[in-house]
Formats: sequence, C-alpha cells, structure tokens
Amino acid sequence: MISKNELKLLTSLQQKKYRQKHKLFVAEGAKLVNDLLHSSFVPFRIYAVDNFVRSNPHLEITPVDENTLERISTQKNPHEAVAIFQLPKATEIQQSGLILVLDGVNDPGNLGTILRSCDWFGIESVICSQDTVDAYNPKVVQASMGSIARVKIHYTDLKQFLSESKLPVYFTTLEGKNIYEVKLPKEAIIVMGNEANGISSVLYSVEKQELTIPKFETINTVESLNVAVATAIILNEFRR
Amino acid sequence: MISKNELKLLTSLQQKKYRQKHKLFVAEGAKLVNDLLHSSFVPFRIYAVDNFVRSNPHLEITPVDENTLERISTQKNPHEAVAIFQLPKATEIQQSGLILVLDGVNDPGNLGTILRSCDWFGIESVICSQDTVDAYNPKVVQASMGSIARVKIHYTDLKQFLSESKLPVYFTTLEGKNIYEVKLPKEAIIVMGNEANGISSVLYSVEKQELTIPKFETINTVESLNVAVATAIILNEFRR
Repeated sequence: MISKNELKLLTSLQQKKYRQKHKLFVAEGAKLVNDLLHSSFVPFRIYAVDNFVRSNPHLEITPVDENTLERISTQKNPHEAVAIFQLPKATEIQQSGLILVLDGVNDPGNLGTILRSCDWFGIESVICSQDTVDAYNPKVVQASMGSIARVKIHYTDLKQFLSESKLPVYFTTLEGKNIYEVKLPKEAIIVMGNEANGISSVLYSVEKQELTIPKFETINTVESLNVAVATAIILNEFRR
Repeated sequence: MISKNELKLLTSLQQKKYRQKHKLFVAEGAKLVNDLLHSSFVPFRIYAVDNFVRSNPHLEITPVDENTLERISTQKNPHEAVAIFQLPKATEIQQSGLILVLDGVNDPGNLGTILRSCDWFGIESVICSQDTVDAYNPKVVQASMGSIARVKIHYTDLKQFLSESKLPVYFTTLEGKNIYEVKLPKEAIIVMGNEANGISSVLYSVEKQELTIPKFETINTVESLNVAVATAIILNEFRR
C-alpha cells in the first residue's frame, strides 16, 4: 500500500523545487530502476509489481498492483517499477580531460540523450548553465537510459567557469571552422548552446575557437541540426 | 471562423488512417508553416492570427484568434499558424547515391530528428519499413523542422528493396566493424533498426557489412546510442 503522503511526495518530485527541497528524484521502469540500483545512487523507496519483487529478493520494496503503478507513474504504460532515489552529493568540478558545457539546453529529451551520448563517448562531466533544464527532471532521467548515474552533472555560472579554466574552449556554432579540418586536442571544453538561440552572447568574450559541422549542400536546407545530434557528432569527432 | 467540419477534419488528421484517407496532414507554428509554403508542398487550408495574415498578404488564410488557434493546435503554445497540406505524391524510389533505410523506428521525435539530419547531410531518400512511424505524424513533422519537405520518404517492404538493390548495404549494429577503420563508399544503403530491438532478423539474410560506432570504454556504460544520434554519426562518417 502507498500512503497519501507517499503519493503526495511522488507527485511533488515532478517539480524541480521539490526535488531540491527533498533531495530526491524519481526513476520509472524496471530496466532504468535496475540500472540505477546497480550504480552509486542510493534508493529511498521502491514501488514495484510482484514480478520485479520476486527478481529482487534482497531489496526492500513496497509491492503495488498494476493499477497503483499506473497511478504513481507519469508514463502511459509503466513497466514494473517506480523508484525514488536520493540526489547525488555535489562533487568538485573536473578540470581536465574532455568536458561538455551546455548553455541553456531546454528540452528534457535533448539533455537526456546528450547524457547518454556522453556515457558512450566517455565524457565524465557535463557543466550546465543555471537555465539548462534540470537533469533530474523525469524526462531527462528517462531519456538518459541510466547514463545519469555515470555522468557527473554540475550547474554553475558558465562565464566564470570558462574564464577560469585552463583548457582550450571550443564553441559549436554555425559560423566556425570546418570541424573535419581542425586538429582537435584530447583535453578540451566543448560548448553547446540553446536549441533556438545557440550560445548566449554573454559568453562570447571568453577566449575560444568556433567549430562547425559542415552541411553537405548550403542552399535550401535545414538551418541547423538538433542539439543532441550536433553534440554527439562533435563528441564523435573529438574521440575518433 | 472555423466550421465544425473543419474542426473535425483537423482532429481526424492526428490519426494516420485519416491522413491517408484525406491525403492531408497538419503543420503547426509560423516558422514551419512558412517553410512548407516555400516548398513543393501544396497548402489545403491555413489558419492564422492577424500578425501572420499581415505578413503573408498574397495567401488565402482563414483568420483566427489566439483562443481558436490554441483549440485547433496540439501544442501548448501554438505560434501564429496551423495549416493543412496535401500529402506529396508518391515518387519512384531512388537507386543511387547515399540512401538511408529505417527498419521499425518507433518514436516520432526520432524520425523527425533523423529527417532533419538527412537534410543537413544531403540524403535525398529515406526508405522506411511499413512498421516505421508515419512521417506525417504531427510530432514527426514538427521535429523535422521543415526537412520533411526536402527529404523523400518511402514506405516499402525492406527485404525486397534490399535484395533487389545494386548498392552495397551497411547495417548499423553493436557487433560490426569499427566505423572509423572501414573505407566508406560514396554510394551506399545505410540501415538503422528499431529503438529497442535493432534491425529485424528477417533482414539478416541480405548481403551486407555491419558497422559499429565504437564506445570509448566498454565496461559499465550505456548499452547503445539513441537511434537519431547514431544515424547522424553514421551519416557524418559517410560524408566527412
């Protein structure tokens, strides 16, 4: 059984301010919950149907029926489990290696997909501007496919971070150098901007190089790539 | 004013069967509607607020107020216009160049993003299995950012198409050759599979090479890349 208070907590965690107040977030679906249980994330409550409970005899789980699972889930067809996890503790920002910086990425699906690509390409840290969508938004957690447990995410003032960093800074823009023709270093900071407006003008005073993924034909085609797609191509170029 | 019948038509076009019956589809938002108006697509009805009407004095537009626009839109904050367009006429399937084949891509956002990447990388034709999400689904049209008007989309039996084609066929899988180490031809067919299950087993009898985007580290990371991301990286590798 789920108490009224638990239900209220679950609903409140859809909102960033309550996630930050309670230091908790929600993950849905057997696969994702299992992935996070096998990470450094600490579970706070697990709600699951019989099948999931039976496969995890060592875990403390609140058993629920399919109807209740549907009620506490934000998904149409929730799969077996919904769990509340503690938000990870803040860590120090990494100052070496390949670092991704996101300036105002808005769409939760894009951020989740970007985290998934970072996990694939071995990017340990993502530094987000304060106006980037919250990484513990349920849609981000979902789209990250568990990568949220492996990639470290920081929210900070980007201008200060970029000004103080000793690594070379690369902005991805529509007017930069052809990325196929630039020799890319192993250690760098890659900056990606907002879906509609790109990188904010306040960051342009930072010392940087601008990179562009070249279009095949330049006339009468789409103006830009999706930001999650562009990020993955840039990461692929730095790692290949 | 919008008549009851028009409202009914607009609602029905959310569903594939009515899009195919009426040979019509819907596009929302001033930018997208404008993009499609400047393409080969033929408008059937345009509904828009004053501002859009004033900027397009040469067009036959049904003026609506903000409330009506919101009522006929599937979006929370529709921007200025909603339009119905005719589905494009079927064309012959291209048999040369670089061709993308999608086997059971399910998510409309993924298909739309893939079309946008195809437009960027100059891929003229996308061949979809019959169980791939309909390209004229409003969410696909939206995510394509107008690319739906520039990339030709076909739905067909993939086994037959691949067996009959004379171009070399490349499957993107998790167990193929490292794509950075394979010499890629200018003309080819690239096959991408379903989000959860990859390329269906029925296609495996086709003569092909398998390609993989290598992971940076192979242990304890995410299992796969998002299909729209993987497609874009593969297209980037073929075009770079």
